[in-house]
Amino acid sequence: MEPQRDAVERVLAAVRGSGRTVLTAPEAKVIAEAYGIAVPAEGLAQTVEDAVALADRIGFPVALKIASPDIPHKTEAGGVRTGLGSAAEVRGAFATIVANARAYAPQARIVGVQVQQMVTHGQEVIVGTVTDPTFGKVVAFGLGGVLVEVLKDVTFRLAPATAEDAASMLDGIRAAEVLRGVRGGPAVERSALVDLIVRTSQLAADFPEIAEIDLNPVFAAADGATAADVRILLGTEAPPQRPRHGRQEILAAMRRLMRPRSVAVIGASGTPGKIGHSVLRNLLDGGFPGEIHPVHPTADDVLGRKAYRSVLDVPGEVDVAVFAIPAPLVPAALEEVGRKGVPNAVLIPSGFAETGEHALQERIVAIGAEWGVRLLGPNIYGYYSPWQDLCATFCTPYDVKGKVALTSQSGGIGMAILGFARATRTGVSAIVGLGNKADVDEDDLLTYFGEDPHTDCIAMHLEDLKDGRAFVAAARETVPKKPVVVLKAGRTGAGARAAGSHTGALAGDDAVYDDVLRQAGVIRAPGLNELLEYARALPVLPVPRGDNVVVITGAGGSGVLLSDALVDNGLRLMDVPADLDAAFRRLIPPFGSAGNPIDITGGEPPATYEAALRLGLADPRIHALVLGYWHTLVTPPAVFAELTGRVVEEFRARGIDKPVVASLAGDTEVEEAAARLFAHGVVAYPYTTEKPVAVLGAKYRWARAAGLLDT
Amino acid sequence: MEPQRDAVERVLAAVRGSGRTVLTAPEAKVIAEAYGIAVPAEGLAQTVEDAVALADRIGFPVALKIASPDIPHKTEAGGVRTGLGSAAEVRGAFATIVANARAYAPQARIVGVQVQQMVTHGQEVIVGTVTDPTFGKVVAFGLGGVLVEVLKDVTFRLAPATAEDAASMLDGIRAAEVLRGVRGGPAVERSALVDLIVRTSQLAADFPEIAEIDLNPVFAAADGATAADVRILLGTEAPPQRPRHGRQEILAAMRRLMRPRSVAVIGASGTPGKIGHSVLRNLLDGGFPGEIHPVHPTADDVLGRKAYRSVLDVPGEVDVAVFAIPAPLVPAALEEVGRKGVPNAVLIPSGFAETGEHALQERIVAIGAEWGVRLLGPNIYGYYSPWQDLCATFCTPYDVKGKVALTSQSGGIGMAILGFARATRTGVSAIVGLGNKADVDEDDLLTYFGEDPHTDCIAMHLEDLKDGRAFVAAARETVPKKPVVVLKAGRTGAGARAAGSHTGALAGDDAVYDDVLRQAGVIRAPGLNELLEYARALPVLPVPRGDNVVVITGAGGSGVLLSDALVDNGLRLMDVPADLDAAFRRLIPPFGSAGNPIDITGGEPPATYEAALRLGLADPRIHALVLGYWHTLVTPPAVFAELTGRVVEEFRARGIDKPVVASLAGDTEVEEAAARLFAHGVVAYPYTTEKPVAVLGAKYRWARAAGLLDT
Repeated sequence: MEPQRDAVERVLAAVRGSGRTVLTAPEAKVIAEAYGIAVPAEGLAQTVEDAVALADRIGFPVALKIASPDIPHKTEAGGVRTGLGSAAEVRGAFATIVANARAYAPQARIVGVQVQQMVTHGQEVIVGTVTDPTFGKVVAFGLGGVLVEVLKDVTFRLAPATAEDAASMLDGIRAAEVLRGVRGGPAVERSALVDLIVRTSQLAADFPEIAEIDLNPVFAAADGATAADVRILLGTEAPPQRPRHGRQEILAAMRRLMRPRSVAVIGASGTPGKIGHSVLRNLLDGGFPGEIHPVHPTADDVLGRKAYRSVLDVPGEVDVAVFAIPAPLVPAALEEVGRKGVPNAVLIPSGFAETGEHALQERIVAIGAEWGVRLLGPNIYGYYSPWQDLCATFCTPYDVKGKVALTSQSGGIGMAILGFARATRTGVSAIVGLGNKADVDEDDLLTYFGEDPHTDCIAMHLEDLKDGRAFVAAARETVPKKPVVVLKAGRTGAGARAAGSHTGALAGDDAVYDDVLRQAGVIRAPGLNELLEYARALPVLPVPRGDNVVVITGAGGSGVLLSDALVDNGLRLMDVPADLDAAFRRLIPPFGSAGNPIDITGGEPPATYEAALRLGLADPRIHALVLGYWHTLVTPPAVFAELTGRVVEEFRARGIDKPVVASLAGDTEVEEAAARLFAHGVVAYPYTTEKPVAVLGAKYRWARAAGLLDT
Repeated sequence: MEPQRDAVERVLAAVRGSGRTVLTAPEAKVIAEAYGIAVPAEGLAQTVEDAVALADRIGFPVALKIASPDIPHKTEAGGVRTGLGSAAEVRGAFATIVANARAYAPQARIVGVQVQQMVTHGQEVIVGTVTDPTFGKVVAFGLGGVLVEVLKDVTFRLAPATAEDAASMLDGIRAAEVLRGVRGGPAVERSALVDLIVRTSQLAADFPEIAEIDLNPVFAAADGATAADVRILLGTEAPPQRPRHGRQEILAAMRRLMRPRSVAVIGASGTPGKIGHSVLRNLLDGGFPGEIHPVHPTADDVLGRKAYRSVLDVPGEVDVAVFAIPAPLVPAALEEVGRKGVPNAVLIPSGFAETGEHALQERIVAIGAEWGVRLLGPNIYGYYSPWQDLCATFCTPYDVKGKVALTSQSGGIGMAILGFARATRTGVSAIVGLGNKADVDEDDLLTYFGEDPHTDCIAMHLEDLKDGRAFVAAARETVPKKPVVVLKAGRTGAGARAAGSHTGALAGDDAVYDDVLRQAGVIRAPGLNELLEYARALPVLPVPRGDNVVVITGAGGSGVLLSDALVDNGLRLMDVPADLDAAFRRLIPPFGSAGNPIDITGGEPPATYEAALRLGLADPRIHALVLGYWHTLVTPPAVFAELTGRVVEEFRARGIDKPVVASLAGDTEVEEAAARLFAHGVVAYPYTTEKPVAVLGAKYRWARAAGLLDT
């Protein structure tokens, strides 16, 4: 059935009219029915014979409740009887509760007796919606009952949810197996439950004033799903709306930010130690081929470049104005930047919202909005755009060109990105500080990097999202093209916030972030080091074409640990077919073991590693290889690295490009071997069996989200 | 009540006599009652009036079941009625099931009708025991019902379990909250449940032939715990017993192994590239001050040392014979080693059980047992004992003396240990290869390292334990003195093994390992890299004296991530008292934030870091510090490292020694700063907020297990 919005609006109007935010059970039920959500059948009986007839039609067991506007507490009045299994029991109960009510409140107007269906069979589940501060309306699903309440086994999706979203929720809880029927119990009717979730989420999405919906319990049975209890709460205030920019508008501004032809430095300085000096120095030293214009209140020349009193004096178009002046001077200078028509202001200064100066921050936001200037920051280290030889920051320069774009909300994390990148020679397409995110946000950058031909992977550190919906939209646009990795900090801090409903209590901030980011296809890094390693390694690895992973190891011990890591990362050790198994067996000593992991044993020469690797790459049924190298005199690290790099590149040249990762167990020479393998597109790490597999797992998660895996 | 062993023995004898391994329900019940495990009351009624009287005495509701040796399938015969709530219902049911039984099997001898109490209130839980291949009898506890079956929320302890063990089980499941009462439900009677677990575990321990016990469900109520159903299975064969050595015997042999005065090399060679050459070379180059005796079939001299035809020709006592000869030659040489009275044979050769040569391995084990020679290996890289300048291995030498003893079952992992140690300059007291563990096992080494004054921490890689009970005993002896870290590989491999009971199906190998290792106070490393990092860092960190952890950070972003990591590692951000908070506030800029994390903000000079650090160390209410350093021009990495190292050492000299760990966010200079901090007893890592906290978490887990924390 089509949702009947009118019916809902009538109820909501009445509730608002009475100044309430909590709907009565009958009001909530009317709304649920208007959206086609199955609720127990009921009817009002005037006489005992009416009640019996109603019960007969509804089906036993039923509950009887006194209906009187003057008796709010029915149970207290002896006005409720449940579990009535026969006509005789209904007759008895009818007489009793009417007598009880009369005795309890002799003046009360009794309008009749409510006869309600009692739904008791099926699996108890919870469906609800809440209004999340980041993502707005989200729908929740979990198994009902005290255990799940304790174990917090619940999953969230943005509302409205599609049927596909809802189906993924049924599989997305840890106890999913229960819904499929266990110990001979029947499976629930998936389509009915999916439909109920979709309708509930649609209801929440259609009516912004509905803050929370709680269907608890829903009885999910083999033949339908019925919400036994419906609770609806209205919100008291609308969440603040952040201004939105269109996709083309965002791209136009971000292109000029990341690929500028002309940059002005407001507060450029010739005095070493000043931020305005470092920024100008980095721009000049970095070899930026565009124009660089120092802006200085008095100087005619800074570091050998002609300086201007105001950005208004700079000749021609300016794409970016980098601010290196104290916070209180920013508004006036920004005004000039606006009048000049500069589309981007990079606001390095601190001293805004992060130090409590909210009014000052609001002021610059207003100026930016008035003149159409996009603001990066304030309170940032600046940004790097290596493919433009652009280093607009006061930090140390970085110029290794590559394929990953990194952003960080925090300056400290930005410095960790820089150090890690330099230590590992990670090639980057951008490093961007986001700071207070007064304006430019992760979604703006995601939109740009999604289109940027230099960027193959995007890695973001963030503590919050100013507009979760915009981020999800940008991520959905980007993920089919390239992996998006997010380190969301503050995972464990807030916990569940105070909430008026059951679903609300379950919706801890992080639980919602986790599910919604996954729904958007984003890879969540569990920590800083993983963010950095994924950023380094994902652009190096080709896309896997299927689920079959094979481990080839020289050390049986590494093979066991690599298998553990594969399972931990949701990967599948390929069930090696008999002919392939026989082919591997021919290469390895008789006491080695084929199967998977394939243990070629420790004493083997380079030729054995090479033969196994060639077989693994050549057979089209294998989709990814995990190598476990063991440092021996017979096959030293450099030899292993050389042969592996050579063979992988040979196959790549022939169009066979599978992900190959390696764990190197050995003396310190393996460190250089790992670097060499990385340079040849093999993701390799010394002294760990976990990292190479974690990176492969991240690549697979993305490939799955992007719909690139057949299976 | 005291367990009545006689009663159990009588039942078991009868079962064995009938050639069965599965006990009938009444048999199992008799055994449970003999051990004081509460089961539903029941009795046999000959007449309908008997039945009513019995039901009256037991309490309603009751179940009635036909009792006939000729009717095994009671339900099929219509011989069962449950949920009988009144005398009238009992009368009706009695007549019905007797009539049904007569109709079903007219010739059957009907001995009466069983009247059973139906226990229906309380929380359903499962208690059981299984015989684990590694640890023998273990007891299991979990919540009953389909959800827990699906979510595998179950915990294990060695049987017999103490009351303390059993109590830790009630808190050791994820859904522990349920037992304490949720949503107004009553809490279970803990002492009754604890008692039931203890008694069940004692029963399993007392009777080796009882393979599995299943009490499922047990109804745990506010007033007792009753096993509604008891299932007992007998085992068919006894597990193989591994020979045990006494503690003094182990110590005597291990001392001579790890601190020898005289070493013979069987198969010493002057030809580079041969294992016997590498071993002798390493012994000589390592500077081992004791005697070194090459044994060679023909040479008079090897590498400048007098050689002997046989170890029997070597003058004086020999503590260790290192074997570097092919496997088939080992038995004869080992025989000679035995006759010489050498207490330790280090068997480097492969070609034994790992290549399928089980008979050869059994042969050397027999020779070792006959002559009292302990065997290390075979199939190992050898071992290092740096404090003795002893390098008895064919691998590259290692001589950095320190406090951690490392062992590995696999040679590949041994090489990773070596490379990691060298790369990080980790000081070690021993590196030992265990290989096939034909004889010397982790428990032998644990016993020795527990006593070794050079060893402050023991880190072990293992794939199995040959004698889990002996390992647990050695761990329990050692953990109060020093941390024991274990990387147990093969976590995810086997899964649950085939089992005849419910509990058996829940007892996946790894679940038992995990719980039993924790019960023994062992810190389990989740992966190879963690094993290595814990090994490096735990001896560096002092013991925390309480739970109050404070984070002091220059980067707010790191503070958030460090807080996440603390929660992930089960640590507690101290709730900073008002006076201490005020003291911190006086040190930091007004826009910084005290509380915890304490954000001193990014632009601060070294003096602010130093003042905050001094306050954190000086205040006795703070027990551990986590520092988040942010690389700035004002406080460069080397300056931060210098001041932190200096201040921590100054306090240490004054007797104030708290764990201090640091996360360094910055450019590559932070790598050197981290190394410098490590050298001063501050566990520091670049580019990660997770690792320093994970190490601190491991230290806390040990301190808790060792009973060193007050709280």
